[in-house]
Amino acid sequence: MWRAGKKASNCWLSLASVYGAEVVAHQGWDSVLIDMQHAPTDFATAYAMLVAVSTTDTVPLVRVPWNEPDEIQRVLDAGAYGVMCPTIDTVEDAKRFVGAARYHPLGYRSVGPNRAALYGGADYISKANETILTIAQIETAKGLANVEAIAKVPGLNMLFVGPSDLALSLGRPMSPNPDDKVTLEAVDRILHTAHAAGIYAGMFSLDPEYARAMMKKGFDLVTCTADITMIGAGAKMAQSFK
Amino acid sequence: MWRAGKKASNCWLSLASVYGAEVVAHQGWDSVLIDMQHAPTDFATAYAMLVAVSTTDTVPLVRVPWNEPDEIQRVLDAGAYGVMCPTIDTVEDAKRFVGAARYHPLGYRSVGPNRAALYGGADYISKANETILTIAQIETAKGLANVEAIAKVPGLNMLFVGPSDLALSLGRPMSPNPDDKVTLEAVDRILHTAHAAGIYAGMFSLDPEYARAMMKKGFDLVTCTADITMIGAGAKMAQSFK
Amino acid sequence: MWRAGKKASNCWLSLASVYGAEVVAHQGWDSVLIDMQHAPTDFATAYAMLVAVSTTDTVPLVRVPWNEPDEIQRVLDAGAYGVMCPTIDTVEDAKRFVGAARYHPLGYRSVGPNRAALYGGADYISKANETILTIAQIETAKGLANVEAIAKVPGLNMLFVGPSDLALSLGRPMSPNPDDKVTLEAVDRILHTAHAAGIYAGMFSLDPEYARAMMKKGFDLVTCTADITMIGAGAKMAQSFK
Amino acid sequence: MWRAGKKASNCWLSLASVYGAEVVAHQGWDSVLIDMQHAPTDFATAYAMLVAVSTTDTVPLVRVPWNEPDEIQRVLDAGAYGVMCPTIDTVEDAKRFVGAARYHPLGYRSVGPNRAALYGGADYISKANETILTIAQIETAKGLANVEAIAKVPGLNMLFVGPSDLALSLGRPMSPNPDDKVTLEAVDRILHTAHAAGIYAGMFSLDPEYARAMMKKGFDLVTCTADITMIGAGAKMAQSFK
Amino acid sequence: MWRAGKKASNCWLSLASVYGAEVVAHQGWDSVLIDMQHAPTDFATAYAMLVAVSTTDTVPLVRVPWNEPDEIQRVLDAGAYGVMCPTIDTVEDAKRFVGAARYHPLGYRSVGPNRAALYGGADYISKANETILTIAQIETAKGLANVEAIAKVPGLNMLFVGPSDLALSLGRPMSPNPDDKVTLEAVDRILHTAHAAGIYAGMFSLDPEYARAMMKKGFDLVTCTADITMIGAGAKMAQSFK
Amino acid sequence: MWRAGKKASNCWLSLASVYGAEVVAHQGWDSVLIDMQHAPTDFATAYAMLVAVSTTDTVPLVRVPWNEPDEIQRVLDAGAYGVMCPTIDTVEDAKRFVGAARYHPLGYRSVGPNRAALYGGADYISKANETILTIAQIETAKGLANVEAIAKVPGLNMLFVGPSDLALSLGRPMSPNPDDKVTLEAVDRILHTAHAAGIYAGMFSLDPEYARAMMKKGFDLVTCTADITMIGAGAKMAQSFK
Repeated sequence: MWRAGKKASNCWLSLASVYGAEVVAHQGWDSVLIDMQHAPTDFATAYAMLVAVSTTDTVPLVRVPWNEPDEIQRVLDAGAYGVMCPTIDTVEDAKRFVGAARYHPLGYRSVGPNRAALYGGADYISKANETILTIAQIETAKGLANVEAIAKVPGLNMLFVGPSDLALSLGRPMSPNPDDKVTLEAVDRILHTAHAAGIYAGMFSLDPEYARAMMKKGFDLVTCTADITMIGAGAKMAQSFK
Repeated sequence: MWRAGKKASNCWLSLASVYGAEVVAHQGWDSVLIDMQHAPTDFATAYAMLVAVSTTDTVPLVRVPWNEPDEIQRVLDAGAYGVMCPTIDTVEDAKRFVGAARYHPLGYRSVGPNRAALYGGADYISKANETILTIAQIETAKGLANVEAIAKVPGLNMLFVGPSDLALSLGRPMSPNPDDKVTLEAVDRILHTAHAAGIYAGMFSLDPEYARAMMKKGFDLVTCTADITMIGAGAKMAQSFK
Repeated sequence: MWRAGKKASNCWLSLASVYGAEVVAHQGWDSVLIDMQHAPTDFATAYAMLVAVSTTDTVPLVRVPWNEPDEIQRVLDAGAYGVMCPTIDTVEDAKRFVGAARYHPLGYRSVGPNRAALYGGADYISKANETILTIAQIETAKGLANVEAIAKVPGLNMLFVGPSDLALSLGRPMSPNPDDKVTLEAVDRILHTAHAAGIYAGMFSLDPEYARAMMKKGFDLVTCTADITMIGAGAKMAQSFK
Repeated sequence: MWRAGKKASNCWLSLASVYGAEVVAHQGWDSVLIDMQHAPTDFATAYAMLVAVSTTDTVPLVRVPWNEPDEIQRVLDAGAYGVMCPTIDTVEDAKRFVGAARYHPLGYRSVGPNRAALYGGADYISKANETILTIAQIETAKGLANVEAIAKVPGLNMLFVGPSDLALSLGRPMSPNPDDKVTLEAVDRILHTAHAAGIYAGMFSLDPEYARAMMKKGFDLVTCTADITMIGAGAKMAQSFK
Repeated sequence: MWRAGKKASNCWLSLASVYGAEVVAHQGWDSVLIDMQHAPTDFATAYAMLVAVSTTDTVPLVRVPWNEPDEIQRVLDAGAYGVMCPTIDTVEDAKRFVGAARYHPLGYRSVGPNRAALYGGADYISKANETILTIAQIETAKGLANVEAIAKVPGLNMLFVGPSDLALSLGRPMSPNPDDKVTLEAVDRILHTAHAAGIYAGMFSLDPEYARAMMKKGFDLVTCTADITMIGAGAKMAQSFK
Repeated sequence: MWRAGKKASNCWLSLASVYGAEVVAHQGWDSVLIDMQHAPTDFATAYAMLVAVSTTDTVPLVRVPWNEPDEIQRVLDAGAYGVMCPTIDTVEDAKRFVGAARYHPLGYRSVGPNRAALYGGADYISKANETILTIAQIETAKGLANVEAIAKVPGLNMLFVGPSDLALSLGRPMSPNPDDKVTLEAVDRILHTAHAAGIYAGMFSLDPEYARAMMKKGFDLVTCTADITMIGAGAKMAQSFK
């Protein structure tokens, strides 16, 4: 897709529902992201969701709870095509993250794909370093200060904006769809730094219109909504029956 | 509510998501229904969802998979305030169902509330026969033929229309929001039979406007949407990003 | 034990805690009973609890939720040494229950022990009809009326008093440790009927002193407490800190 | 396949392992059967295994624990392409079973496919009566006596031999690969009765050579091994290290 | 409570039983602690227990397995009102712990409360830094040596004595209710250091009488028993039936 | 066994099947290893598998996902008799690992065995430092370079070869049964270094013949096959039915 100059849409999965994941994966999103950081999704549930997404052509991504090598390696072995890591603040953070997702000589990922080898085939290990997507969240003032160096860490494929944490860290009002000038400048800096380094840029939003604008702005991967956001529509509906 | 002449709204839960159930229970619906018949919700998940709904004032109902005394008793012990049973076709079906939900002398429910006693208190057993709601689905031609007799089974509290099965059984086009004349006559007959027998009537819909019309028509409990229906909104959204 | 004229103690398990089951199984009870009727214990949890009890010499019994052949067969395949069935009211009930627990020609249990064959060995199937304990709860007026005939159903090993349901069904005050005259006469009748038919008698209690009295009275298997009863001690303790 | 005159191979799944199910589904078997009767596989696990098999082209079948409408309907809603029911002894048994698996007017299956509609598409309900496979196990003397009538029950697609139960019920030595004359005559009778009635015949074996012979004999679906049988190879291996 | 000069009682939860947690939460303890370090409680179970405790007014605390930011953040997002961290030995340990539990500018907790926002409301993020309780266990000689500095780490709310580890580390006999002079001096030092720094002090015990004494001594939060300790009473009872 | 000069066989468990673990534990292997690194086995599943293995005399080992103190302590509390840690590259790595598995004064394992105390008895804590097996995987060029120093870390009991990662790290062809000269020299160096330091040596293989050769060569613990390897036999069998 990206080679064809297109942008990739993404739906965020926070409900820890295996059936919900399969339903969403059938909706036509380019990718889904299984969130293990800010959702009640443990490894067993994420594994089951990865299996469910594998019944479709939608690309499954996973956000791990933190920059921990075991979590990163396990979701890749379980069949994630890409892994997002929160709060990458320094080059060291980025190297630790990327290293866990890459086999020798690019990293220290240990050999033993299990589900991954089922879909990836016998040559999974020789190809994984090229095909697995590594996505670093830049979401603090510190990460922003180091963003140019982080973008150049070999094996990193994408910088992804975490707008709420970023705004909070910059002392600005939080919004999933930032309109604050300082925050927006930071967002732009992340976008341009990624592209300048020859890697992708991603953005989180829960509003399809804002997401569309972010794609136009140049982001390669944009979260457009979440399962829990769609369910949130019920609150207004419920009130209408009062 | 019903004593005050109001109608009760309901949100259907098909996603088997414990977190989703808690989110929906916070939205202001009068009740939620945990579906164990046509959803991947087993007893353990239904139990966890009942606990989640108990953190709010929303009334938790459960639809059991079939007219089985063990399922009915277990969801009541687990804290359901009401139980819906699919495909009640005969007076015998209704008695078997109602009996499983009522203590002696009204039924054969066995003593041993566990979670139910936590919320219901020490006098749960003496009060349960009055407070637990029993809801029979009328959803076949046979059930319709017997509906007047079913409505008079002592201890039954509500007739609830299952419009898809009813239409299919009547040889009419299926629709969650029926507009077919024959089906609508059957719906009206169920509604009026319930009220004539001094019990409540309920209706399933996944469309808030149709639900509102059903309330106006006189239904006391109306399903207005489902968690999975809200998530279904994503399909159109995803296509807009193609 | 019984051949030696001793009585068997029993601890009831209602907490659906696998670790709790293993702890209790180490305490020295002759048997534990995993309750699937009035506890949040589904099959998966009961299975895990059976495994946990198998790490000790304590005899694992299971109460199924209802007289359903599939539940009875599955807990036996999963390694229960005995199965208790609630609410046996008639000879037909008893035959349906016992038949599900016995292989041909004594019953209709289907061949395919899985965990059971691990502990029972290669000759499990040829021995199971003799070694598996079938326990029928007599806990209604109707069951009491039929108790003599029920006791003679071939392959039934024990009548077990469910005192709360029995008292409720007889229109008497409920108590786990009945002291009501009418209820006590019913309890005695069940005890003597079992022994007259050459089978065992069991009694439920949650009070060790009452349990001891029941053993003296002649009951062969007596429930003496439950995991949840022990935890209940905390309520008084908590109040002392107010 | 069957239209092309070929026989279908089957691998039995007893380990209740979701990962194991996906591994086996990648091995090239025509079908796998998820056993809920004689394996520690509850509904939640069977559901997860169905999802795992859906990542491949292997046809997923489920054996329900017993002839219970709720179990039959739920595994079909969960995406099983066929359902096997144990111990079909009479025409009434067969009608109860087939009815639960067929929509009106062929049966009483209730409308509400969930996972099934994801793979089956919008017209699932109109096609399911033709595409879903119903498989009745003939495994008792009584079932054998009624086999000709059972085979003619409308909507039934296959008679499947349960050789161990059948031999036990006939008072003959049990063997997964029967060589006893009386049992073999019964097996042949089931095979020919199925074909005479214009439906399929299936056979259980755990020995690939015997399975091959059964295919030659004319069985349309033959179980050739099981996950647990393959693991059983370890016992001999382990001894070789003593 | 603390503002009113009262002490808070606590019941420890080691059984990993969701139902048990709800039962205990109804007993009147001021708080319960869900132990993820020395109990078979994984994240999914802790989450379910937090939901269960949320049906009452009892304050839910969680002890994480180790000083890991992801564990700390996840239990807070899941609705813990306070988090206890084992083995805080240094100021660095304390900062890492407290930082994970506090939003910018006090720490590095990432934005995305899920269950927490359900109970905390729309302003959860702005209030969480004040309302969430951070509890550091001092339980080694090294921790004791650094206790004065640890107590002054901004954002830390309580020092909590882990008496067994502390005694072992000091080379003294272990006891949940220490009576060894050296250990007791260490306990007192922790208590007084906390109060001198203007923060709370907590103590673990499994003996209500000892707990009462610790409250008198000045501890603000005292563990008085555990679910598993209450169940332990069964061992003596079981022996009495031998 | 080792005192008697014998070698210990091992079967690797990758299927995350509790029932499968119990089946394998009955086969006569000296030990089984529950893999949490490269298998879909989370803590809850590993715990259940440990319980299942405890029903036999087979020694249960666990490989943790990474060198994380919480994982190491939790599987020991859950009843593992030994713990294997992947990718030990330095003396610091080894000390961190061993420290988490040893009580003071040999390490920093926190006191609170739960299941472990059930099987280990009242003196578990005083004996655990001697009886618990710590197994470090040497599987990188860096680990090999430091192997002599690692082998001397007090409290470490075994060096275990991870042949695939080791070969990859050395830039040699990967094979579970290495025949490459450079890799074999590294294998030998690890073996001899362990024995020279007075500790054990272990080797991974999935081929019984190779395993036997490794035992002859002197390895004290040798993995001979895996549950998933045995299931892999089905692929060839399935093809034979095409």
